[in-house]
Amino acid sequence: MAKQVDNNMSLDYLFSPKSIALIGAAHSEEKLGGVILKNLLKFRGRVYPINPRYSELMGLNAYPSVADLPELVDLTIIMRPAAEVPEILRGLESRTKSVIIASSGFAEIGQTELQEEVRKTVKDIGVRILGPNCMGLYNPHHKLDTFFLPYERLKRPKKGNVAVVSQSGAILSCLLSGARQANVGISKAVGYGNAIDIDESDLFEYLANDETTDVVISYIESLGDGRKFIESAKRLSERKPFVVLKSGKGFSGQAAAFSHTGRLAGRYEVFHSILKQFRIKETEDFDELIDAIKALSYQQISNGNRVCIITNGGGSGVLAADECMRQGLDVVKLPDDKADKLRKVFPYFYGINNPVDLTAQVRDEDYITALNELRDNYDGFIIIALPNVYGITERLPDMIKAAKSDINKPIVCHIPGNGFAKRLTSLLEKMKIPVYPSPERAVRGLKALLSF
Amino acid sequence: MAKQVDNNMSLDYLFSPKSIALIGAAHSEEKLGGVILKNLLKFRGRVYPINPRYSELMGLNAYPSVADLPELVDLTIIMRPAAEVPEILRGLESRTKSVIIASSGFAEIGQTELQEEVRKTVKDIGVRILGPNCMGLYNPHHKLDTFFLPYERLKRPKKGNVAVVSQSGAILSCLLSGARQANVGISKAVGYGNAIDIDESDLFEYLANDETTDVVISYIESLGDGRKFIESAKRLSERKPFVVLKSGKGFSGQAAAFSHTGRLAGRYEVFHSILKQFRIKETEDFDELIDAIKALSYQQISNGNRVCIITNGGGSGVLAADECMRQGLDVVKLPDDKADKLRKVFPYFYGINNPVDLTAQVRDEDYITALNELRDNYDGFIIIALPNVYGITERLPDMIKAAKSDINKPIVCHIPGNGFAKRLTSLLEKMKIPVYPSPERAVRGLKALLSF
Repeated sequence: MAKQVDNNMSLDYLFSPKSIALIGAAHSEEKLGGVILKNLLKFRGRVYPINPRYSELMGLNAYPSVADLPELVDLTIIMRPAAEVPEILRGLESRTKSVIIASSGFAEIGQTELQEEVRKTVKDIGVRILGPNCMGLYNPHHKLDTFFLPYERLKRPKKGNVAVVSQSGAILSCLLSGARQANVGISKAVGYGNAIDIDESDLFEYLANDETTDVVISYIESLGDGRKFIESAKRLSERKPFVVLKSGKGFSGQAAAFSHTGRLAGRYEVFHSILKQFRIKETEDFDELIDAIKALSYQQISNGNRVCIITNGGGSGVLAADECMRQGLDVVKLPDDKADKLRKVFPYFYGINNPVDLTAQVRDEDYITALNELRDNYDGFIIIALPNVYGITERLPDMIKAAKSDINKPIVCHIPGNGFAKRLTSLLEKMKIPVYPSPERAVRGLKALLSF
Repeated sequence: MAKQVDNNMSLDYLFSPKSIALIGAAHSEEKLGGVILKNLLKFRGRVYPINPRYSELMGLNAYPSVADLPELVDLTIIMRPAAEVPEILRGLESRTKSVIIASSGFAEIGQTELQEEVRKTVKDIGVRILGPNCMGLYNPHHKLDTFFLPYERLKRPKKGNVAVVSQSGAILSCLLSGARQANVGISKAVGYGNAIDIDESDLFEYLANDETTDVVISYIESLGDGRKFIESAKRLSERKPFVVLKSGKGFSGQAAAFSHTGRLAGRYEVFHSILKQFRIKETEDFDELIDAIKALSYQQISNGNRVCIITNGGGSGVLAADECMRQGLDVVKLPDDKADKLRKVFPYFYGINNPVDLTAQVRDEDYITALNELRDNYDGFIIIALPNVYGITERLPDMIKAAKSDINKPIVCHIPGNGFAKRLTSLLEKMKIPVYPSPERAVRGLKALLSF
């Protein structure tokens, strides 16, 4: 337990530093050290560019080395060629409380000896290190952004309640881009790369206790310490929703993962069965992960797997029912008494089954009538509203919101198309009702909200 | 063969009529008959609204009945309550060459006797009928649009080379909306509903011979005549790419499909094995179908399953390699001589494997170098360009286009994000290089282009 507290305290220097030194700071965004410096300009604490060839960079005083700084900094970021890194690290002893090695050129390209040297030096100087070959950190609650990606090329998502932990910087950037498109806010995002010190498990421990984080997602190619992973993942998933996307599942993927981070992906089947045993959610692919975080960041998890589908498009209801079956969700028949009641209030040509088919003659209020009648018989609801008929109007989002706060169970929507569909989507998502572009994706979103 | 010719001739009256009567035409879009009439205003042939209570509707002369028309029309559309349909049909004998029954209220809501009566009447009057309970037709090459969906709510896709055949009108509208978003043009779109006369097989026969159609996709819930389906699907797929999405796969889906169109979905396993036997492509879900038609409408099919992935994001390459494995595509190792050549021209830290990893230090021309070197060793290529680094520029689309016309094998792209990513996507898709928002979707798009 003491170790866990230490871990969390030292990671605080990384995630919420008061002062930052950047070794390899450059004067323009043509160099990655310039991109990082530009991103650090928004940081509210003290930033020290380190570069012996400049006295000033992007309007900040520059320093020849960390030894020349007026204070012991909380975080030092290194963006210099790999071969220089061991020497730079030795110069950091007692001058920084944490380090990010953004540079690449280590085990991922076969430079395992160099990586070993870095690992030993890190132990000698006694600070926590993120990297090497890593994207670094984004903590919008602290206005911290250490990425070497220009803002114009990767618009960051707003601040929110989802933490993203990714070994790969590329996937981290794609997840952030996906989060932004899905109207999902981020609490913290970390790309941890080759993980010679801080690994996924340390980050899970930290995020389990992080108050700004309600949901954690993680992209994992390989594990350092399997036992440590299981313990930390289990603890995390007991405290908050936690979803994993594992890659390197087949031989080609494993070979690719090895050349990418220099760690072995391990047998996927073993990993999968462990996650299953500890009831940790896993998604099949990238899109499913994005769909899951939208649902989880918007709504609370509910127990059970009984799903009711309410649709104005017959075929869309059938596709949703098919996907429910594939995902282990139960499209339970309507109770006879409820079906009788609905038959009395709805036109004779509506389909009173599950899916409830409101047909092209639908009016907004029909969804609410069905929701209210069936609220106690199901654990989650999928509303399919094809907005290509005039019976669907802008009143629908407000009506669903009111029903949702009454029913207090997960409700997700599928609304296809552009134009008016986008307007409905935007209104619904402001009210924390997630909207998906296909029936199957809506089902996968709802699945993330059901515990069974 | 004679029957097939007849079929195709009579369907010409449906798809390319010169004159249309609309029974149930209304004066405003509040009624479905008004929506259809408004959509018919763009038609270049003669349109006759039929409604005994009006002498004029939306600026057109209205007629009390079809018997009052000045000519024998090619197509009559019926949008009147189900109970009136048999009587209306009897009045059409010798007055129309084809009929669409758009009205619902037949077998799909248990009115099987009424549907049987309609079926018998159709035989008596001896014309081909589409429907009942159907969306009708969209033929942009002929400016024909018989849908009861207002244009403002369902923006139609442009004209192009893909035909869409869907039992469900809802899914038809979603597929058209998806096609529009995917920059895919449509040759013909049909919603055939309860299929008492013209069924999927008749439509496949027709489209196999249709010169404006290069690709056919079909959403199927249930089959009328299984043997006829197999024969027509086989013939069609021998002539052009043909992709099927079957729903009603599990028990819930089958029940939903039955209540939707009044036909039994049948055992999915049987259907699936038949498609497999005749090498007809099938997609798992809605998104995969859209991803497939984008690829198929843009590029030619190639033989083989050897895939090369060229990426500037390691993790994205790993996810793509995983998906290739799941889809039966082979991420074959680079030939040693080619790897040696690439190692000589690329920086030492690039990953010279499959995926080829160009890292965050990528420049546009690196993709072309790799493509040209590996062109003879693979059957299809996936270009992953994460546009979050300045090394990816607007020059890339032109460069890929030039390489594509040289290499003459399928090339698909994965480019995530908004902003600059959307700009690149738009440029590439104008050049018929399909772009996908996730690595896995790019793989599924490429799979549609590989025959193996």
